[in-house]
Amino acid sequence: MSLDEPHIDTYARGKAVSEQVNPGMEDALRDRYDALVPGLSRTVVDVAYGQFYARDGVDEKTRLLATIAALTALGGQTRPQLKVNITSARAVGATREEISEIIFQMTLYGGFPAMINALNAAMEVFEAEEERA
Amino acid sequence: MSLDEPHIDTYARGKAVSEQVNPGMEDALRDRYDALVPGLSRTVVDVAYGQFYARDGVDEKTRLLATIAALTALGGQTRPQLKVNITSARAVGATREEISEIIFQMTLYGGFPAMINALNAAMEVFEAEEERA
Amino acid sequence: MSLDEPHIDTYARGKAVSEQVNPGMEDALRDRYDALVPGLSRTVVDVAYGQFYARDGVDEKTRLLATIAALTALGGQTRPQLKVNITSARAVGATREEISEIIFQMTLYGGFPAMINALNAAMEVFEAEEERA
Amino acid sequence: MSLDEPHIDTYARGKAVSEQVNPGMEDALRDRYDALVPGLSRTVVDVAYGQFYARDGVDEKTRLLATIAALTALGGQTRPQLKVNITSARAVGATREEISEIIFQMTLYGGFPAMINALNAAMEVFEAEEERA
Amino acid sequence: MSLDEPHIDTYARGKAVSEQVNPGMEDALRDRYDALVPGLSRTVVDVAYGQFYARDGVDEKTRLLATIAALTALGGQTRPQLKVNITSARAVGATREEISEIIFQMTLYGGFPAMINALNAAMEVFEAEEERA
Amino acid sequence: MSLDEPHIDTYARGKAVSEQVNPGMEDALRDRYDALVPGLSRTVVDVAYGQFYARDGVDEKTRLLATIAALTALGGQTRPQLKVNITSARAVGATREEISEIIFQMTLYGGFPAMINALNAAMEVFEAEEERA
Repeated sequence: MSLDEPHIDTYARGKAVSEQVNPGMEDALRDRYDALVPGLSRTVVDVAYGQFYARDGVDEKTRLLATIAALTALGGQTRPQLKVNITSARAVGATREEISEIIFQMTLYGGFPAMINALNAAMEVFEAEEERA
Repeated sequence: MSLDEPHIDTYARGKAVSEQVNPGMEDALRDRYDALVPGLSRTVVDVAYGQFYARDGVDEKTRLLATIAALTALGGQTRPQLKVNITSARAVGATREEISEIIFQMTLYGGFPAMINALNAAMEVFEAEEERA
Repeated sequence: MSLDEPHIDTYARGKAVSEQVNPGMEDALRDRYDALVPGLSRTVVDVAYGQFYARDGVDEKTRLLATIAALTALGGQTRPQLKVNITSARAVGATREEISEIIFQMTLYGGFPAMINALNAAMEVFEAEEERA
Repeated sequence: MSLDEPHIDTYARGKAVSEQVNPGMEDALRDRYDALVPGLSRTVVDVAYGQFYARDGVDEKTRLLATIAALTALGGQTRPQLKVNITSARAVGATREEISEIIFQMTLYGGFPAMINALNAAMEVFEAEEERA
Repeated sequence: MSLDEPHIDTYARGKAVSEQVNPGMEDALRDRYDALVPGLSRTVVDVAYGQFYARDGVDEKTRLLATIAALTALGGQTRPQLKVNITSARAVGATREEISEIIFQMTLYGGFPAMINALNAAMEVFEAEEERA
Repeated sequence: MSLDEPHIDTYARGKAVSEQVNPGMEDALRDRYDALVPGLSRTVVDVAYGQFYARDGVDEKTRLLATIAALTALGGQTRPQLKVNITSARAVGATREEISEIIFQMTLYGGFPAMINALNAAMEVFEAEEERA
């Protein structure tokens, strides 16, 4: 099933995916932001998850590693999103080594500062995993 | 074999990889740049290929898709490198669909302009493939 | 009507807006990109126009001037989108002076190079207007 | 009166504007930075306010919303400036809804992480308003 | 003489410097842009040259090499400005080697694509020098 | 001696330089990161110091001021690296005035927010110097 069929419900598709990789996300966004920006939480679920993440054509782990790569290279304000995506990548089976290697390679495109900062974010996620274990 | 063994020859390792995915690259760089920046071509082979690409821990296709993701999100000056990496990704087995999907997803991080520009670069690579076929 | 009502049809809303400010856009995108990325044209209409541009809360001219500001400050790969948004801003009543002033002010945030480049894009749009007149 | 008249005093013009939207700013900058960079505070007032903000051709509210848009899309290090400009926008009559909508639309150009971060900055400004009320 | 003396004429100071490193620049900017943005050419001279470049505290060659470094790392839309500043750096005595080395080092901060693009810009400047010789 | 002689030991060269400007750096990186990314510390020493910093062709102070310029203009995630490079620049003889002037000039390329943030980083380094004195 592809997006070019006019009647696909991208919100429902996004909701299913987001609840699986990020349970409770829509509710948390709604509570925090929707009074200010009506419908923000629904747009995030529909757009980010329904119209992009949930597409066919490439497996979920590769999507998430690619996302981690981009967020690393962009640097700056992306730490919270990096941690969300690293957590999601772990949930779909990415190893610590795979995540760390992808981040390390981004030295070539974002420079050393961006790489070190992303690695620090990954280490926070990995440490939190161990505390839960 | 990992990089933490002090005597690994990263230049030799990079040379092997770069000749495989990008034959003739070091020579082309040397001819164009080394008179101005002595050793530039060797540094590219040693660093980009020997110290990053050729590492273990994640497969080559995923490395290249992650690189395409980052170059897409960074936008701007990255078109030549995008085309090189898209060509390399095709050479190690990435499908057009996988490459296009990864680019499309970058809308979420680099915005629509960056995504459209990268897709245009991919289409140039795919069209060149068909002309060679 | 706001986005937080679950049954709003953001594609239909986006289609109405995009046809008004950019007639034929979805068809052009479909012809060029949908074979590679199924549904890309629909996602652009639904997301960019239906879920963002068409929202209430701020008038369309201000939305477009703000978009021009951001594209100016981001610099780099945004020239095609700058020209589209400058054309749209003209269509909803923005004067050349307003557009130029917003671009000029972006010197403070994106630096002189970004400002000059955006002004060149605006001049191309304004010259095309005169040729059509 | 426009800037192309050679004898306009851009510092005086900037001082009048900056004291209105940001009372005490030059003094605060002078105390903190001028020992290190002589004249920094004067240059900020002259350049940012006198040679850009205070220009004719577009109303102040639109200038400030455009600035907020650019700072949102640029992301990263712009949080303090975002808060200053959101505060100024409120002072010249921009509603919370207008500010939030402009920020939300920047998802299209700066991506979701940049938008969420700017919205968090706006919420801090709005909460501080309520504490003062 | 420093900028913190209130009566310094930054435009006159900038005019003297800009005519030395970039003869005819204000006239060229005025002819192209001032009809659209009144006073743009004067602001560039006053601000870029009078309030920044012409300051004391660091020699002109270092200022220009630092500017080349920043424009390289920023990448994207900066090629015209890179060429202007490389030309200016040559005019105040920077060697080709110094310029190339500074650009090469920016690999560490802007990545390989940004470095290669800047080096290409430098080579265009150096080739134009030889044609004039 | 230049990099294009195939047998230069860039790691040894980088180690000598890094121990001089940043004593203990490789050990600190190894302790923190090498379990996750084997060889990261060695790559930083070899690449950043051996293959870039330690090159001939431009003096070390100019290299560091150029680096500070780029990190300022890039903004965002670069504060830790800014502080390292400002400290190194001080160690090789750059004055506070030179560093501050280079940062201030970056207003033209990175905008006011980036400049102010870098100046704050510099002030932290200068204050730490005084505490040690």
